[in-house]
Amino acid sequence: MLKVEMKDIVEAYGRIRNYVQKTPLIYSPETSERTGSEVWFKMENLQPIGAYKLRGAMNNILGMSDEDLKCGGVAASAGNHSQAVAYAAKLKGVSAVVCVPESTPMNKRYGAIKHGARLVVYGPNYEDAENRAHEIEAEEGRKFVHAYESNETIAGQGTVAIESLLEKGDFDAILVPTGGGGLLCGVAIAAKAMNPDIKVYGLQTNTSAPWDKSFHERKLNNDCPFLPTCADGLEGAITWPNVELALTCVDDIFVVDEESTREGIKWMAQKHHYMIEGASATCLAALFEDHQELKGKKVLCIITGGNIDLDKFCEICEKDY
Amino acid sequence: MLKVEMKDIVEAYGRIRNYVQKTPLIYSPETSERTGSEVWFKMENLQPIGAYKLRGAMNNILGMSDEDLKCGGVAASAGNHSQAVAYAAKLKGVSAVVCVPESTPMNKRYGAIKHGARLVVYGPNYEDAENRAHEIEAEEGRKFVHAYESNETIAGQGTVAIESLLEKGDFDAILVPTGGGGLLCGVAIAAKAMNPDIKVYGLQTNTSAPWDKSFHERKLNNDCPFLPTCADGLEGAITWPNVELALTCVDDIFVVDEESTREGIKWMAQKHHYMIEGASATCLAALFEDHQELKGKKVLCIITGGNIDLDKFCEICEKDY
Repeated sequence: MLKVEMKDIVEAYGRIRNYVQKTPLIYSPETSERTGSEVWFKMENLQPIGAYKLRGAMNNILGMSDEDLKCGGVAASAGNHSQAVAYAAKLKGVSAVVCVPESTPMNKRYGAIKHGARLVVYGPNYEDAENRAHEIEAEEGRKFVHAYESNETIAGQGTVAIESLLEKGDFDAILVPTGGGGLLCGVAIAAKAMNPDIKVYGLQTNTSAPWDKSFHERKLNNDCPFLPTCADGLEGAITWPNVELALTCVDDIFVVDEESTREGIKWMAQKHHYMIEGASATCLAALFEDHQELKGKKVLCIITGGNIDLDKFCEICEKDY
Repeated sequence: MLKVEMKDIVEAYGRIRNYVQKTPLIYSPETSERTGSEVWFKMENLQPIGAYKLRGAMNNILGMSDEDLKCGGVAASAGNHSQAVAYAAKLKGVSAVVCVPESTPMNKRYGAIKHGARLVVYGPNYEDAENRAHEIEAEEGRKFVHAYESNETIAGQGTVAIESLLEKGDFDAILVPTGGGGLLCGVAIAAKAMNPDIKVYGLQTNTSAPWDKSFHERKLNNDCPFLPTCADGLEGAITWPNVELALTCVDDIFVVDEESTREGIKWMAQKHHYMIEGASATCLAALFEDHQELKGKKVLCIITGGNIDLDKFCEICEKDY
């Protein structure tokens, strides 16, 4: 069972703060005017690897024992987590292996190897790559760095909330794009410890929303459609431990429309000239969709990352919404 | 004659620092690998109005006498400076008038009025709008806030260098996109005061390069082609006082290719997922064009702004370079 407390997140922040970017917290007059909320963005797309995932990876790598440091780390992911682990390991001079499924496109493979990680391409889908990573964990004595189902990872991601609330403490609500739930749990635990009145909402798109039933039924339920989505970082089935932890600290899960999410990408480009990935744009989608819980409130949106393919970005921005 | 010293820039920084964003200073492994320089970006596109111009405007508004505060400010510009003055005036509760020529598109007009400035549309080109602004200065007793030919403006823009060098002091060179020359002079004066070994280079595109002859011949020379350019913020004829001041503190002016500049916009979108305006991309162009002065050096690029039209941005990004 996962167990993360505020003291773990505080400790993580002390550990990683000199290794991660203190990202800007920016007010959006345009989004505030449109939505009737007071909207702020925490720009985690400005981390060196273009996503908040660096925080959790860095906390894992910096918390390694001498034994772990010698053997190195191993991770599985086709997305930002791979890059994060590779980057963090390089910074600390530790060896890293990253396992990806065969379906992973070349540019995402490059994201890991450019930081010096050993790339292992294995099996048709994510589960195969994760299984291979666990074999490597056993064979080589490497520390497995989980993308979300890990106390160290959750504590690292939670530092986003500490950093934001130390700059501006009076938010009413925080919107957290949610895939596996590492960021969601970390942010909720830190935010509630700093100010119990803050509401924390997890966001998924209607094209991949296993958190919706799982959270509301209080049991794991991956029985939902998984359709193509611009929010690739949030896509896929989930596991019970993060849901179980979220049930102790998260206020609600909102499911947003795929189309509103695409509109969110275009809105940020048009109004603020920021390129953000689909996952981040679920925050805009939630605001556009007029949730009563957000009306008139001071809302912090975690802009989780900016790693979007340029062609896809332009295709989305050329459409009308 | 313009006269700005380090103490003016230090004073400006003390005055404006709580009103402007401390923007991130970010290392670019990709650009470093491609160019053989160690490349860093100062992300002034993350200022609230999307450009460094806020610094100079803020310094003017915050430095106003009681008399000035009562009468308010007036500025002329079709670009970022208008927005900057309007935003700064609103923050301080001062009234502002912004004069633009009739050719100014609606979205740029909106940029000023959304911050509550009074908009005056006057005459076919910039000079007409500036003349009208001077009339308003006389008629209404308002303080004229010049976009570049002003000690207060230059001192404000120079704070970019103080902020960057306090974070990382050992740059060999700074690349400064140059229009009127306010930023160029401010950065050069501050940088040389903090570290006389730093080289400061001004950048223009070959589609509008009056600084080239003017600087090298040491006299004003606006006799050069003015062609359509993606770097609209740098476009246009210049005046003598900023050249005269630059001759005392700037090392050289580089003229970069229009096409390399467009490639710079695409490169930043592709590799870093940042939307930057053409002016900022001249830094990338200079690095791509292999200036010997930059080879192997630690180079700071001032990313001056991100205010680029989304259609134009996608058009540039869809081309091959």
